[in-house]
Amino acid sequence: MFTCDFKDGVWQKPEITPYAPLTLDPSARVFHYGQAVFEGMKAYKDDNDDVWLFRPKDNLARINKSAERLAMPAFPEDVFMDGLKALINLDKDWVKPGFGNSLYIRPFVIATEPAIAASPAVEYKFLIICSPAQSYYSGDVRVLVAEQFSRSANGGVGYAKAAGNYAAQFYPTNLANQEGFQQIIWTDADKHEYLEEAGTMNVFFRINDTLVTAPTSERILDGITRKSIIQIAQDSGITVDVRPVKVTEIVEASKNGSLKEIFGSGTAAVVSPISAFSHKGELFEIPKQDKRYSDTFKEKLNGIQYNKTEDPYGWRESI
Amino acid sequence: MFTCDFKDGVWQKPEITPYAPLTLDPSARVFHYGQAVFEGMKAYKDDNDDVWLFRPKDNLARINKSAERLAMPAFPEDVFMDGLKALINLDKDWVKPGFGNSLYIRPFVIATEPAIAASPAVEYKFLIICSPAQSYYSGDVRVLVAEQFSRSANGGVGYAKAAGNYAAQFYPTNLANQEGFQQIIWTDADKHEYLEEAGTMNVFFRINDTLVTAPTSERILDGITRKSIIQIAQDSGITVDVRPVKVTEIVEASKNGSLKEIFGSGTAAVVSPISAFSHKGELFEIPKQDKRYSDTFKEKLNGIQYNKTEDPYGWRESI
Ligand SMILES: Cc1ncc(COP(=O)(O)O)c(C=O)c1O
Ligand SMILES: Cc1ncc(COP(=O)(O)O)c(C=O)c1O
Repeated sequence: MFTCDFKDGVWQKPEITPYAPLTLDPSARVFHYGQAVFEGMKAYKDDNDDVWLFRPKDNLARINKSAERLAMPAFPEDVFMDGLKALINLDKDWVKPGFGNSLYIRPFVIATEPAIAASPAVEYKFLIICSPAQSYYSGDVRVLVAEQFSRSANGGVGYAKAAGNYAAQFYPTNLANQEGFQQIIWTDADKHEYLEEAGTMNVFFRINDTLVTAPTSERILDGITRKSIIQIAQDSGITVDVRPVKVTEIVEASKNGSLKEIFGSGTAAVVSPISAFSHKGELFEIPKQDKRYSDTFKEKLNGIQYNKTEDPYGWRESI
Repeated sequence: MFTCDFKDGVWQKPEITPYAPLTLDPSARVFHYGQAVFEGMKAYKDDNDDVWLFRPKDNLARINKSAERLAMPAFPEDVFMDGLKALINLDKDWVKPGFGNSLYIRPFVIATEPAIAASPAVEYKFLIICSPAQSYYSGDVRVLVAEQFSRSANGGVGYAKAAGNYAAQFYPTNLANQEGFQQIIWTDADKHEYLEEAGTMNVFFRINDTLVTAPTSERILDGITRKSIIQIAQDSGITVDVRPVKVTEIVEASKNGSLKEIFGSGTAAVVSPISAFSHKGELFEIPKQDKRYSDTFKEKLNGIQYNKTEDPYGWRESI
């Protein structure tokens, strides 16, 4: 694992060491005040056993954006990129080739300073740990549209990968699971009128041949898969409407047959086709399309990620 | 420190051991998903060197309410009370006598299970740690009324002492500090029209001789000091209006001289008189009263806490 401590106002010398437990004072602020941010990214192996990253600098930029919102120090890009590549090189054998296989990479930062007062820490630890991964979601996903619980609000931390955002979703998601839904699509906290994003995915709607997705905001994470899909869709001649998405609009589109697809986007599964959604107790099934946009996007993204195709965007980065 | 592990679906045998670092896997969920809740309480020493707790069962009830919202298991009251008392008995010498002195007690629960998926842990640790404390806030406090940032939303976790709620306040509070304000009074995330609570305090307004405070809600922590003050005020013949408090109302009351006091309430300082608030760039000073309600409430609460007076409510609990 890669570790680097922040102390006396600066990031200290980074280290790569064998994976081992952390030793922290019980009063370390991360335990009490949730001062912790993280990222999720992957390394992919091609047929020549070369290993590739996908837009890794965007992950570093985002963890720094998250860190700023939680009053944590930014981490330098060069130390991150060097450390990341050195670590993945060491762990190369854990990256299995073949679509779906990858090494999941988890950079994260925690407040380590021991202190009981509810104020920002002056000591932190930046870590990168890895774990071999297969596809995250298996099969199609059924989702519940949030009507009571909420994930984030204007002026809050929804756009950050702040640790606390995730624990806050566990209980509502458990309730949804009990009703047979794997995920919740969060709506605006105020009136639950707009569809925003799912637990760890941004959400796209295909209405006839147009792709619709909510704009990123203070409440919505700026997903790297999301923006890659928007780019690929536009370059494939698909109209992409980035605008607030009303729940009633999607319900209507489902009823009149113009709703062709819903899918989530995220590093974990690339795209997760959603087969049904429930809103106010009513279940809406989405008829399976012959040629789904979601399959095309997954194929194109995987092509770039696994070095099977051209990368006109410069998204792929070799180790 | 007191520790108890949750494993195989049950809380294991609790232990009291010397204060020592925790050893946790880097993938422990608390680091990634902020699955952590906490409490804050105090032990007080009277002139006979006897030590007292204040409504401790309410803290346990609240940590369990917080835990439920974060999909964490409840902790049994009897194990908590026995462990707490045994621990405080051992640490008795750290409780200094005299108003303002106390032993701050921090119960908390963290998700210890190593696993990378964003879902609730199946292993947890419940801990109680202590630290000698003096008054938390020194002097009067100047506050900023939130106009842009927000602390919680309907359907969220604002009513829970969830770790992530606190880290989320650090950055806005830093900005407020830079402008010379110690705290933020949070308003509703939607329109910033209603005054809700401060970082670690509920908030009271005295308008002429009436005490006004916001009702607890999904967004506001049910403070133990708050409800004790409401009780004491009512029993002293003071009218207490528990109702939503409009920012404009308080601005108006400040302008026409009917706003006599604002104070925060919380375990840390009992009451913190607020001497000025800023709203939309305008500063409102609160003229110092001769006999402040806040002083009376502090005196009465301290009297009960330090075993100086009768305790008609049964709030005091001996160790
Ligand atoms: C809340 C949230 N939304 C969306 C995403 C998808 O983002 P990305 O495509 O960068 O993985 C994630 C996962 O990282 C997430 O946690
Ligand atoms: C958000 C918040 N509000 C209010 C309070 C005051 O609650 P109590 O009086 O129980 O200490 C606290 C502190 O515990 C708090 O964290």
